[in-house]
Amino acid sequence: MIHRYDFGSPIHTGAVVRELPVSGGAIPYFMISREHDALCFSLSLDRDDIVFGLGEANRGINKRGHLYTSWNIDDGLHTESKNALYAAHNFLLIFSKTRCFGAFFDDPGLMHFDLGYTKIDEARIISENGDLTLYIIEEATPAEIVSSLRRLTGRSYLPPKWAFGYIQSRWGYRSEADVRAIVDEHRKRRIPLDGVCMDIDYMDDYMDFTVDPAGFENLSRFCGEMADSHAHLIPIIDAGVKEKKGYDVCDEGLEHGYFCTYEDGTPFVGAVWPGRSFFPDFLRDEVRAWFGSKYHRLLDAGVDGFWNDMNEPALFYSENGIKDAYEKAMRMKDMNVGIHEFFRLRAVFADMANNPNDYESFYQTLDGRRVRHDQVHNLYGAFMTRAAAEGMTAHNPDCRRLLFARSSYIGAHRYGGVWQGDNHSWWSHILLNLKMLPSLNMCGFLYNGADIGGFNGDTTEDLLLRWLQLGVFTPLMRNHSCQGTREQEIYRFSLQEKMRDIVTVRYALLPYLYSEFMKAALTDGCMFRPLAFDYPEDETACRVEDQVMLGGECMIAPVYQQNARGRYVYLPEDMLLIRFRAAGDYDCFPLQAGHHWIDLDLHEMPLFIRRGCVIPLSRGGEWVDAVDAKDLTLLGWIGADSAYAFYDDDGLSTQVSLADGLTRITVRCGEDDTSAHGGNLTLHTHKLITD
Amino acid sequence: MIHRYDFGSPIHTGAVVRELPVSGGAIPYFMISREHDALCFSLSLDRDDIVFGLGEANRGINKRGHLYTSWNIDDGLHTESKNALYAAHNFLLIFSKTRCFGAFFDDPGLMHFDLGYTKIDEARIISENGDLTLYIIEEATPAEIVSSLRRLTGRSYLPPKWAFGYIQSRWGYRSEADVRAIVDEHRKRRIPLDGVCMDIDYMDDYMDFTVDPAGFENLSRFCGEMADSHAHLIPIIDAGVKEKKGYDVCDEGLEHGYFCTYEDGTPFVGAVWPGRSFFPDFLRDEVRAWFGSKYHRLLDAGVDGFWNDMNEPALFYSENGIKDAYEKAMRMKDMNVGIHEFFRLRAVFADMANNPNDYESFYQTLDGRRVRHDQVHNLYGAFMTRAAAEGMTAHNPDCRRLLFARSSYIGAHRYGGVWQGDNHSWWSHILLNLKMLPSLNMCGFLYNGADIGGFNGDTTEDLLLRWLQLGVFTPLMRNHSCQGTREQEIYRFSLQEKMRDIVTVRYALLPYLYSEFMKAALTDGCMFRPLAFDYPEDETACRVEDQVMLGGECMIAPVYQQNARGRYVYLPEDMLLIRFRAAGDYDCFPLQAGHHWIDLDLHEMPLFIRRGCVIPLSRGGEWVDAVDAKDLTLLGWIGADSAYAFYDDDGLSTQVSLADGLTRITVRCGEDDTSAHGGNLTLHTHKLITD
Repeated sequence: MIHRYDFGSPIHTGAVVRELPVSGGAIPYFMISREHDALCFSLSLDRDDIVFGLGEANRGINKRGHLYTSWNIDDGLHTESKNALYAAHNFLLIFSKTRCFGAFFDDPGLMHFDLGYTKIDEARIISENGDLTLYIIEEATPAEIVSSLRRLTGRSYLPPKWAFGYIQSRWGYRSEADVRAIVDEHRKRRIPLDGVCMDIDYMDDYMDFTVDPAGFENLSRFCGEMADSHAHLIPIIDAGVKEKKGYDVCDEGLEHGYFCTYEDGTPFVGAVWPGRSFFPDFLRDEVRAWFGSKYHRLLDAGVDGFWNDMNEPALFYSENGIKDAYEKAMRMKDMNVGIHEFFRLRAVFADMANNPNDYESFYQTLDGRRVRHDQVHNLYGAFMTRAAAEGMTAHNPDCRRLLFARSSYIGAHRYGGVWQGDNHSWWSHILLNLKMLPSLNMCGFLYNGADIGGFNGDTTEDLLLRWLQLGVFTPLMRNHSCQGTREQEIYRFSLQEKMRDIVTVRYALLPYLYSEFMKAALTDGCMFRPLAFDYPEDETACRVEDQVMLGGECMIAPVYQQNARGRYVYLPEDMLLIRFRAAGDYDCFPLQAGHHWIDLDLHEMPLFIRRGCVIPLSRGGEWVDAVDAKDLTLLGWIGADSAYAFYDDDGLSTQVSLADGLTRITVRCGEDDTSAHGGNLTLHTHKLITD
Repeated sequence: MIHRYDFGSPIHTGAVVRELPVSGGAIPYFMISREHDALCFSLSLDRDDIVFGLGEANRGINKRGHLYTSWNIDDGLHTESKNALYAAHNFLLIFSKTRCFGAFFDDPGLMHFDLGYTKIDEARIISENGDLTLYIIEEATPAEIVSSLRRLTGRSYLPPKWAFGYIQSRWGYRSEADVRAIVDEHRKRRIPLDGVCMDIDYMDDYMDFTVDPAGFENLSRFCGEMADSHAHLIPIIDAGVKEKKGYDVCDEGLEHGYFCTYEDGTPFVGAVWPGRSFFPDFLRDEVRAWFGSKYHRLLDAGVDGFWNDMNEPALFYSENGIKDAYEKAMRMKDMNVGIHEFFRLRAVFADMANNPNDYESFYQTLDGRRVRHDQVHNLYGAFMTRAAAEGMTAHNPDCRRLLFARSSYIGAHRYGGVWQGDNHSWWSHILLNLKMLPSLNMCGFLYNGADIGGFNGDTTEDLLLRWLQLGVFTPLMRNHSCQGTREQEIYRFSLQEKMRDIVTVRYALLPYLYSEFMKAALTDGCMFRPLAFDYPEDETACRVEDQVMLGGECMIAPVYQQNARGRYVYLPEDMLLIRFRAAGDYDCFPLQAGHHWIDLDLHEMPLFIRRGCVIPLSRGGEWVDAVDAKDLTLLGWIGADSAYAFYDDDGLSTQVSLADGLTRITVRCGEDDTSAHGGNLTLHTHKLITD
């Protein structure tokens, strides 16, 4: 049951796909107060209340006890202090034994979520705009609340199957030769690979939809060459459009007035990678149609995947900002800088980037109404993603394409996936990566993943190996790093064979992972869930922060500490531990419900299968198309007959049907032997553990 | 057995107190190579080698797998990426079942410790100076290696007993009224307290050894008032001396040439809190004697504790640095800043602080020889601590005073303690705090503690409460925070009673903690140890990173995760769990060796006592002098007769004797009753668990 409450003049964000009537009567749960324009929703928190939600956000699966800010920002230092990241996913799920409800604050402006920070027993959610729609969702279970939200906000984006392959990326690949070498090195060593991301250097002077002719002589030919090697090219597209006469995107945008403007109507200028740039007003249908059509140039060349970046939008500085900074610095120069002036001087230049003043200085147009950017700030990335998706659909409505973005808002989950932003090569970020999975899933972002090995900072061999062991399970499995950091392609390391072996596990699990992803997407469910969703009565399970449920059958619990040779795991029920070393190299251990220490050497990774369940395992492959999803080995610990609903399809068509894609795999445990059946699948049962 | 090897012209750092002969023959373990001036010591690492050591350093108890840099630096953002903190403690302990040795690199310049980072199976230790003494220490056990190092480097600093009380601190207390309010609020709520730190604002314009007359009308009178309230004042002293005519420390330093100089002999000018400042050359005996004598002014007023800060030395900028920065910025101004220039522009001002160029631009004098500062950089803080300690001894050789510093080098442990620097209000820093304890102990820094609640960033109620639960055990138990962050005195929070209760546990444990501290100091032992020191045969114990041994009888394992209601603990042997809520409020649970999940509500903290051991517990007190160390309740789980060597003394005298201070507490387990005896102590045995 969803109740809708409107406050002020809600902005049409595009988050929901069903228009609900506004509810009458008192708003449940929250006390509401107004301070100037801001609206504050306060809520008493009981000792045992857990707060789930907020999608791509920092810290725990349980968000209780801290501050969160919805203000999309390009800030790559995700320490525990950071309250705002790249996305605004304003959904909360309050859960305890005595109550359970969801709240979606559909507000594209600045919001604060004080979830027991200022007062340990009170949540205060503040909308600075004061114009929003609040949806209160009441169902019997957390999982049903999330399904209800998801039906309200629409079906999640479906990537092509190849997008579940291993992807290599780095800011620094500059040419066909660079990319070719990456692919060759993987193929030579039989490290599975399905794609290579091209970061900003592939462009001509960082101009969107151009290709540096010095590095990429003929993109179409090169796409073909890469396709022959079973590798997809995935170029980046940034939000900012370089100011340059003769550059079609700039010229057309200026000519038609497609860019965001200052109050006086002249185009807003901010600096990003290409230097001085303009910012398309993606909120307008005609601007999206225009910008989306620009992707056709690359699609025509054979590109079938993109990542959209810098779409918070990031601003290194504005033309006004840098002028002001110099003026301030000059005034201080004559002041004989004292120590407090010194800190102000440093701040003058440090604070130029992503400066709130700049976001208040330009305007967009929504539903024909002019709106200052900061009022709708958190929509910018979402509508860029929509522009790209609509452009791709216009190019070919029948073919799924890979698309993922940095910045997002609920609603964008219908158009593309996300990556978790510019993380660091920190062990704590393996855990953060894990914790975001269920939270992102709740908000509809099923296709997601973090930069494996860490984007900023220097990785270590063991960090990368352990991170890959989590990456095996994330829909987007991408190794990505920043220019200037330690190179972190698998083959750079002495442990490369162990790393390769772990990647092969991904391809062995691919039929299962794809099946669970598609089922979640087509049923408005979550591929990854907090344990509380599956074991709401188990108080220990509800508070676990370093294990998550995967699909209907599994639980994952990666190692995320350097030099650890294992970890603790809590099993809410009997489970079968699979300790993987490679696609075909693993042991199975039946474990009783309860607390366990699991030995896991550096090259070993665990997967837990609920007792009574089976999952299919392929023989693997060096790219997705090479994986035979019809020749499957079943894993599980069963005592009675068992079954698995296996989904598969061609991996490309946009016309998908759950009914058509499902094959029911049934296992019969006989006295003497165990047999399995499922359509035209070849099924091996010798690995099944029976009581 | 210690072997000494000299390379080049080793600098006399004062780290060791025994002159060993230089060993002949080949250097064991390490392969040595030279690149220009630098010396590289490489060592193969076996799969099971653990690397302990490095004192105050980032990351794990086991340092293996990462890079560490010895270069004392004022950098308050201790993310996982940071290789250098405030101290240089160049001691490593390599440990596995097949080998065990220590290596102390006595080198005060820039050193790198690549401990399996570049190559996972190789350590490379690089001395940039190339002038150093290497001590190789071989003994049968890790504990004996550390004792051997400690005998070489001299007895650890002994603080007064009151320094084990709870200390409240914050950058922002400006006046007698501020400090009085802090003490009053604690006393009113019966939160135990023994001292208040005065941060830089107590000074007149940040001038060392002055007091702001506006805030502190009469320090002597105020010291007396505070003493009546059983509170000690602990002012800060910074390394930099303000450039100001008429300020005696400045005038005398200039007159006698006591400050570090540029190459041309004119005094080096760097900017710190007081603005343009001079830096005493603490390496010179006469400078230390002079600077140390300045402490007398505050000692005479009744101050009996100090903290030395900014002694890396921190440099916000130098007079040359800021001139250069402006010049660079001006040149860029005319360049029509592009995006890469923009990043350079930001860096120009950001990189002014602690700039290597500045450390290479000034000179000190050691043993009559002129030496460029960077060659001896890591000694600066250590020799400032020595200056203060020598000054205090000169003032009164019979009385222990509290002294702790930010920057240090091995050798400084004889003169004072340390705090762990400008940490953050992060849960991960509770764990970092714990991990540093054994590493600091190995290097002799027994008196240490981290800023409880976190210095930078905003604390949360639960973070502070959990951090206090660790702070209960650290010799320095100080709540400290930065100006501008959330106020974090206990009484600011709704959970203040729970927090107070935890502080009372500290006072209940005080007789035991003081006893174990003093025994460690007087026997060159470690109060805190990695589990590997006590259970070297237990491979699981050896790799535990979130539990440490405390004293001869205990193990600690704090909760360091938000919203956790317990934690996993590994017991290498049977232990008695004490679950404390307050001094007199606790439960005891005998637990078998092995893995355990321990339920710990937010206000509950664990202590583990080894089976067969007993520890004494007092009734507590609101300040250290109020704790009756003669009326003790024994805690433990024993099956046979047991004993504890209890050390106590007057807590002030510098003439300490282990033999004189020890009382042997014996417990006799009879058929019907259990009785205990120990000198003139009143001992209660009703809490003892017997088989």
